[in-house]
Amino acid sequence: MGIFSADIKSFEDLFLHQLRDIYYAEKQIVKALPDMIEKADNAQLRQAFQHHLEESRGHVQRLEQVFGMIGQEAKGVNCPAIDGIIEEANDIAGDVSDARVLDAALAAAAQAVEHYEMSRYGTLIAWAQEMGNQECARLLQQTLEEEKAADRKLTEIAEDRLNRAA
Amino acid sequence: MGIFSADIKSFEDLFLHQLRDIYYAEKQIVKALPDMIEKADNAQLRQAFQHHLEESRGHVQRLEQVFGMIGQEAKGVNCPAIDGIIEEANDIAGDVSDARVLDAALAAAAQAVEHYEMSRYGTLIAWAQEMGNQECARLLQQTLEEEKAADRKLTEIAEDRLNRAA
Repeated sequence: MGIFSADIKSFEDLFLHQLRDIYYAEKQIVKALPDMIEKADNAQLRQAFQHHLEESRGHVQRLEQVFGMIGQEAKGVNCPAIDGIIEEANDIAGDVSDARVLDAALAAAAQAVEHYEMSRYGTLIAWAQEMGNQECARLLQQTLEEEKAADRKLTEIAEDRLNRAA
Repeated sequence: MGIFSADIKSFEDLFLHQLRDIYYAEKQIVKALPDMIEKADNAQLRQAFQHHLEESRGHVQRLEQVFGMIGQEAKGVNCPAIDGIIEEANDIAGDVSDARVLDAALAAAAQAVEHYEMSRYGTLIAWAQEMGNQECARLLQQTLEEEKAADRKLTEIAEDRLNRAA
């Protein structure tokens, strides 16, 4: 977002920039998840990641619809935030020896990703409403609900592990 | 977190690493907020940032208490995630000409920071419980509640703006 200050003059510019930011982020997530699926030991966690990979591919397509609705070409901008979050996730997906510890670290990394997405989609929905574009807002809301559900699922898996350990 | 895989063998190691990650993050947030306060135009937003700056200083001290509780020296580790989020926030805090658009961008950046913190504190609390350290979990829960409240406050400010625009 280094060219932000030069480019952003209106709410429409801000919305477009943020849309490009999350488009890049979703594509990076689609690239990162297969490695996390491979590394995860717990079957529930692997399933949750697999499910979220399929959802994330749908989120990319949904964003392309939103680009279309505002008459813009779908393209990403570099986003140091998601790059940093995924860099941390990739480090975790290295070779921690204990499978249970690695699973906990992978799930935590995925929840950091979910929270980043939740904040960005929340903002985009508010701005779409501010611009009076209810159709975009509704479409983005569908993705936000899926991100929240994915985050809740990861919390449930963590709680299951905690209950088994207790 | 580049040295993660070499260092993390137990849940205690993972907890300590994550604690160092958020300790670094909170300190970076304390450094970043004064510039955001200076750039914000809306009085409510400036107040919310100012309040969160004071809270964040308290979060740093609370983390130092947690380090003490587990018999470790308080120190940070580099965290590319928060660096990336703050890099984006700093870009936004540049010189977007329209005050209302800049306020919206600043609030969005702050919400991305809040969500990162919420995900990290949520994880730390779960792990503290997993390790049977209820005292650490309770202390971290206080911070999590403050982060959630800060995020809700920013959403309310955005909704107020939306209602005034309607």
